[in-house]
Amino acid sequence: MGSPGNNCRLGTHPILLSLFIPNPISAALRADGFGETPFYHCLVAEILSAPGEPQGPCVVGYGLYYFSYSTWKGRNIYLEDIYVKPEYRGQGIGSKIIKKVAEVALDKGCSQLRLAVLDWNKRAMDLYKALGAQDLTEAEGWHCFRFEGEAMRELAGK
Amino acid sequence: MGSPGNNCRLGTHPILLSLFIPNPISAALRADGFGETPFYHCLVAEILSAPGEPQGPCVVGYGLYYFSYSTWKGRNIYLEDIYVKPEYRGQGIGSKIIKKVAEVALDKGCSQLRLAVLDWNKRAMDLYKALGAQDLTEAEGWHCFRFEGEAMRELAGK
Repeated sequence: MGSPGNNCRLGTHPILLSLFIPNPISAALRADGFGETPFYHCLVAEILSAPGEPQGPCVVGYGLYYFSYSTWKGRNIYLEDIYVKPEYRGQGIGSKIIKKVAEVALDKGCSQLRLAVLDWNKRAMDLYKALGAQDLTEAEGWHCFRFEGEAMRELAGK
Repeated sequence: MGSPGNNCRLGTHPILLSLFIPNPISAALRADGFGETPFYHCLVAEILSAPGEPQGPCVVGYGLYYFSYSTWKGRNIYLEDIYVKPEYRGQGIGSKIIKKVAEVALDKGCSQLRLAVLDWNKRAMDLYKALGAQDLTEAEGWHCFRFEGEAMRELAGK
């Protein structure tokens, strides 16, 4: 298969994301992505059919993002989840999704594109660094913290 | 001064946030926080006047947050920035702000409260851990990445 630019396109059809996700979560994704104030946005990567092939475009990956904010830097975009089906990896589809999200970010007046990566995922880390990202945990010592479940309910006194 | 519960209240008056911030940024904060689809939300901590004192409530801290999203966990809330004026620290006002944000999170159907801390800020890290947060960088190896400035424009091809 040649360059993904030849047979892969990116669309903003988030409903297709539900193809990848089990049913109860899929219902929440539909509700949260299609209300008056969507909680997230999504790009899907589609492989186009060759001329004469009967089936339509086939979704092979996605990038799920939302708008975040910095007191000092203003609007940002956060790429929460990026996925490419295993059999379509190594063709530049992931990079194409990230680049498209960066384009959306600039169009919306964002000054940063943020994301988080697990330290064992060296392939992803190398890709993001090669594309120009900075590892802020390494460079500045940022740690990600999370309250969840019982800890969150206790915190809220509920 | 006694417990902050006696003389400190939390409000959702984000315009007051501009009190802390230089003018050009303040203008962006007003635009981005008060449009049809606000990019952030803000709580302010106010110290109430004693009976008979002429001045009204005085803002002494804030918490700036936005709604984030996880493909698997759904709606989350992200506490981007929390600040308490130095002379009012050590009285539990920061904890009160975090607790209120957790309450908002649960009311809005969020399952997580996320934030990031610099590793030299041991006082903040200890506070979040004492309140029940997990350090995901330490426990699972999450690293924060960021594209910004020229790297972001190059990524977007602009």
